[in-house]
Parts: sequence; structure tokens; C-alpha cells
Amino acid sequence: MPRYKLTIEYDGAPYLGWQMQASSYGKSVQGELVRAIGEFCGEAVTVGGAGRTDAGVHATGQVAHVDLTRDWPNRVVRDATNRYLKDEAIAVLAAEKMPDAFDARFSAVRRHYLYRIIDRRPPLTLERERAWWSPKALDVERMQEAAQILIGRHDFTTFRSTECQAKSPIRNLDRFDVVRTGDGIECRLDARSFLHNQVRSMVGSLKLVGEGLWTADDLAAALAARDRKACGMVGPAHALYLTQVDYPAEWVPLPDTPE
Amino acid sequence: MPRYKLTIEYDGAPYLGWQMQASSYGKSVQGELVRAIGEFCGEAVTVGGAGRTDAGVHATGQVAHVDLTRDWPNRVVRDATNRYLKDEAIAVLAAEKMPDAFDARFSAVRRHYLYRIIDRRPPLTLERERAWWSPKALDVERMQEAAQILIGRHDFTTFRSTECQAKSPIRNLDRFDVVRTGDGIECRLDARSFLHNQVRSMVGSLKLVGEGLWTADDLAAALAARDRKACGMVGPAHALYLTQVDYPAEWVPLPDTPE
Repeated sequence: MPRYKLTIEYDGAPYLGWQMQASSYGKSVQGELVRAIGEFCGEAVTVGGAGRTDAGVHATGQVAHVDLTRDWPNRVVRDATNRYLKDEAIAVLAAEKMPDAFDARFSAVRRHYLYRIIDRRPPLTLERERAWWSPKALDVERMQEAAQILIGRHDFTTFRSTECQAKSPIRNLDRFDVVRTGDGIECRLDARSFLHNQVRSMVGSLKLVGEGLWTADDLAAALAARDRKACGMVGPAHALYLTQVDYPAEWVPLPDTPE
Repeated sequence: MPRYKLTIEYDGAPYLGWQMQASSYGKSVQGELVRAIGEFCGEAVTVGGAGRTDAGVHATGQVAHVDLTRDWPNRVVRDATNRYLKDEAIAVLAAEKMPDAFDARFSAVRRHYLYRIIDRRPPLTLERERAWWSPKALDVERMQEAAQILIGRHDFTTFRSTECQAKSPIRNLDRFDVVRTGDGIECRLDARSFLHNQVRSMVGSLKLVGEGLWTADDLAAALAARDRKACGMVGPAHALYLTQVDYPAEWVPLPDTPE
């Protein structure tokens, strides 16, 4: 029963999020993958994902794993799944056969997120479901400097949803870079794992620094408060992208099955 | 009665195109601008555009002009119009007071278009309404080389819609560059003016060259045929962007009105 690693891209807008819902109020990314893979190979499958992205959050490099009875060539798994996803905003970018013990979630050692902000006076049109609009110009240098306060091992209670189910609020943030690009402002965040709404809560609070409403000290005080009420703001989901999930080098794909 | 030049951005997807329709089957960009400006200043206005983009075609730098009774500061024209466009995927990027004789369409000396293609095996998700998907890899060097055949003054009958209303099929194409970027393939086309469907017809035919189905000679023969039936293919509207309209340097904006 070969296990496949799937690298997945999706537009989060039409979905309730990654996770399949017990009582279905709409479509989930995981649910559509389960359906599509099931239709292609004619069996009931379980799909485990690396990051449980919220409703509206996009992915350009989500990772999942699935066990299939037949030993299909990687290309067939990718293309056949995509065929059954043709009406969805979800695509399998790559399928790779992996050792049985590979687990998309538990083997992962690092998640990479991108959060996009566009600060300009006119509202967004082409990017309106792709970035956070700030009519006020943001001071990116102040944001970059203040963001470094959050780097390292901290109790991130301030920056997690009250619904977060993680046992511990302690996380190690490895990177939080804020840079202006031709297209707006890109926030790049890396960590082994994130708490529920952590990226959106940290970026939302940092935006107050960019607007001059908060100082870097205010951000430090918010972190130190370990109190959800100290969070400045939560950025919208539609500006957040799960871009990459890293695994230790020992997870080497198995040789592909000849077609 | 001051005349304003408006620089406009829109997502073409929700609209029937730039032009207001006599019998309305839906929204047009021009129609929404007429409505929004009319609501803001309380008068019936006429809005003239530089390029009559088709249904689904986007713009990041469309230009229009409008006459208003009152001498508003530029910022007020921009922001107030955007306020009445808040439910639309249309934004005024800039408003500038111009001499009365300035005409967005007839004063223009050059239009710039971008056509985006993404060639990859998996279908598009985030870009699916923003670029043309080619599951087959395209040879960009062959495309760039062949595109140069179309540069210069030609009878472009092959590459214009049978519904094109221009009196002459002769146009001067100044630029047709095809480059691979991190994001896919960008085709950049510049001319004083284009025929109806000209960009989409030329790019569609050039894609056949990129796929190896046509040679550069086939493209030259299609041009020489001066026959719409010789056109290889018409690319979809949702991958086309009107990015810029140029005016001669003598069109200098008038001093802004103090607020």
C-alpha cells in the first residue's frame, strides 16, 4: 500500500478551510481531495495535511499524504487527481512515493507562510481577494525592526485564537521579515509550527506599528502580556499563503513506478 | 467645466467589457464609472476611455476623461469616485486636471498590453482567472523570435475579429516581446492602436509556435494571407491586461485645485 506525498496549491476563497467538516456547510480542500482521489482510484482514502489552513487562506505549497492500494506512477496520481479536481480551485503540483512512515504533519519540521499587504489609497481590484488593503501608507522599516521582537521562543498566547487547541502556547518563531516589493509588502514567516491564527494576529498587530499607532515597545508589551485581549488586530485570511513545508533530508522519495 | 484624466484599474471578470451597452445585459466598466461619478457629484457625466477592452479583459492602466462642473481637487475626484465604486472591482488610481482638448482616446499615441501564459502540467488555481493555462511546455525562444515577424506596418486582417469596426486593417506594431518570468510567460505588446481581438489573435497563433505545431514561417504565411481563417487561435480574454496608455509630452496636467 504505497504512500504518496502530495504538494498542493489552492485558492482558499471557495473553501471552508483545509479541514473536512463533520457536518458539512460547504466544501473543504481536504474533502475535495478525498473525493477526487477516491473517484480516480475507486477506493475510500484518508488524506492528512501538514497545515490546517483556515477558511479563505491560500496555499502554494501545502503538503499532504495519502495511501493508495495500487502502485501508480507518480505522474498518474498527480494528473488523475487533477482531472477530478477540474471544477475546483485546487491542484496537485507533485506526487511522490514515500516511505510508509512519512507523515505530512508529524514529519514536518518547518512551515513557511507569506502574508501580503498592499498599502495604497485606491482600493484593490485584481488583488482584492489576494492581499490586505491598507489605505494608509505603512512604514516597512519600522515593521521589519519591530517584527524581530517576536523572533525566538515565546509564549504566544496574545497572538493565538481563543479557539486554538494546541496544548502549549509556546512556539519558536524563526523568521519574520517584512519587505517592500514592486507589488506591495511581503511578510515572510517561518516556524516549526504555528498556533491557530498566529500569523494573522502577529501581522495584524505589526500593521499598527507600520501605521505609527503602536511603537515597537507596544508590540513587546503585547507579547509579554500573554493575553489575547492585548492583540492589536487580526489580519484577513485572504492575504495569507502557506508557501512551503520542510521535511528532514532523510525523507527521500522512493523510486517512481515505471508507466 | 474642468476636464479630468482618470487612470483606472479593474478586474475584467465581472464586466461585459469597457463599453456601456445600449441594452444592458450586465455591468460595464464605463457604465459603473458613469454611475459612480454621477453619484458623487450629482450630475450626469460622460466618460470616454482610451481602450475599449473586451469582456473579461483586465486593466492596470486604462485611461479615461470626464468633464465635471465643479473644480474639485484631484484627490477628491479620485477618492469620492472610489467610494461609490466600493462594491465594484474597479478603482481610480489617479485623477488629474487636464486642458479641455485632452481626449483619452484621440490624444493617445501608444497602448501597452500584457498577455500572461502559464505553461505547466497542473491546472491553475490562484491564477486561473488571471492567465492562460497551457498544460504543454512552450518554447519561449521560438516564440520571441517568431513574434518579431509581426513587428512593423502590416495588414493585420488575419488577426482581427470579423466584427472589428476599424476602417483599415493596417496597423503598426512596435513591440511584441515574449519572456519567461518566475511566474510564467509574459507577452508585452505596444502599438499606437490595436484592432479588435488583435492581441489575443496574435498571442493565440504564437502559442502554436511555442508548442511546435507552427513554424515561424507558418506565422508569416498566416499574416501574409490577410484572411481571418488563417488565424491559428484566439487566446482567452482573462489573460489580457491593458497596462498603460501614452500621451505626447505636451499634455501636461493643469495645477491642482487647493483643498
